[in-house]
Amino acid sequence: MSKVYLVGSGPGDPELLTRKAYRLLQEADVVLHDKLPGPSLELVDDERAEDVGKRAGGERTSQQYTNERLVELAKEGKTVVRLKGGDPFVFGRGGEEMEYLADHGVEFEIVPGVTAGVAGPGVAGIPVTHRDHTSSVSFVTGHEDPTKEESAVDWPALAATGGTIVVYMGVGKLPDYTAVLREAGMDPETPVALVEEGTWPDQRVAVGTLDTIVDVRDAEGIEPPAVTVIGPVAKTRETVRAFLDSPYEQ
Amino acid sequence: MSKVYLVGSGPGDPELLTRKAYRLLQEADVVLHDKLPGPSLELVDDERAEDVGKRAGGERTSQQYTNERLVELAKEGKTVVRLKGGDPFVFGRGGEEMEYLADHGVEFEIVPGVTAGVAGPGVAGIPVTHRDHTSSVSFVTGHEDPTKEESAVDWPALAATGGTIVVYMGVGKLPDYTAVLREAGMDPETPVALVEEGTWPDQRVAVGTLDTIVDVRDAEGIEPPAVTVIGPVAKTRETVRAFLDSPYEQ
Repeated sequence: MSKVYLVGSGPGDPELLTRKAYRLLQEADVVLHDKLPGPSLELVDDERAEDVGKRAGGERTSQQYTNERLVELAKEGKTVVRLKGGDPFVFGRGGEEMEYLADHGVEFEIVPGVTAGVAGPGVAGIPVTHRDHTSSVSFVTGHEDPTKEESAVDWPALAATGGTIVVYMGVGKLPDYTAVLREAGMDPETPVALVEEGTWPDQRVAVGTLDTIVDVRDAEGIEPPAVTVIGPVAKTRETVRAFLDSPYEQ
Repeated sequence: MSKVYLVGSGPGDPELLTRKAYRLLQEADVVLHDKLPGPSLELVDDERAEDVGKRAGGERTSQQYTNERLVELAKEGKTVVRLKGGDPFVFGRGGEEMEYLADHGVEFEIVPGVTAGVAGPGVAGIPVTHRDHTSSVSFVTGHEDPTKEESAVDWPALAATGGTIVVYMGVGKLPDYTAVLREAGMDPETPVALVEEGTWPDQRVAVGTLDTIVDVRDAEGIEPPAVTVIGPVAKTRETVRAFLDSPYEQ
């Protein structure tokens, strides 16, 4: 009867959890989480929470530890929620955890969540798709060094799609991938927005262009966690902002 | 005090509404919706519901009508929920509605939702990103004819990214865009999955390859609404299926 639920917490605002995620948080015997769910962690009571983001001594918990702990708890007969920031399958390593569970004979269920790359820009008045501007949107991670030859992300190909590009965890390497995109021929006037802690109480938004966004980031002091939106849609915020009533911005 | 909430309903399962969407559905004076929220429409009571998906006589309501109706209701002092399938900003025309509201001086708020292109595959055991297979995912619509010269979607560029491609509303034109992708050099053995009515009670999933998926679609009788997932991740379903406990599949 034990089972592991791979659950998306949504972008941070506890009201943006799904009704199902909320119910499972109340029913679970144990909740394994890291820090990414942000303010939604308020809903997880301490007795049932296990932080697999950090370990005593400041070390990071390995993915292997988390995988093994999920199996261990399930074999003890526990109902386990593995709570992940956003959606478990959008840069959440949920795919690996799912495969490990299946390989070890543990039953699991997937509970999708609202992903930060759509929600953060969205609440700030930036639609990742828009009939007038773009008919596709690509999601990538900004963790990798885009100048490395073995980079798995093909930035020039992404630029060639003509669609919006949304970069998760994209603050640190911003100078690198914006340079690669300019070299690939993307218009330096292309609007770019940074959304820091989207849907969190301290959300901040900064808008520039492919050419200026690094300076904007530095001037505004934008820090992780944040998503980057690259494309004409990033400028819609300016035109609607006077009537955008956001609970996340002052 | 009147206001328009552009609200994502999620993929269909009423439990995959966010807590905020659920609250607003109870508080709103009027709920403007079409058919895409699917089973979630059970939560909207008839007295406050206005269907802007169809009109008497079977005609489709124009976007202009919906835009004007939102402004009209807001000017009457109503609290309005504009309920959209999935997320309002992922192929939902929410961007246009937001701009129309701002142009007409109406205050609005965005309430993101779980998008069908992540959730449908997800609950079927298909992660749209996976460290072993892909470091990007692109979302496109399949409505357009990909062989038209003026096609806004650059399929060869999407193929060149090497990332997962998720096609919304991609059943009808499946033969066209799979042909374009093969011509662009994509491996004909690339796994492809179709998820029909993802998270609805009648969800169905069919898996094939770029070469076989049109025959698979016809043999299984897959019909809209459905999303198509193109990339190595589409085959993970087969390897985990024995331990995937889904409330949506028999």
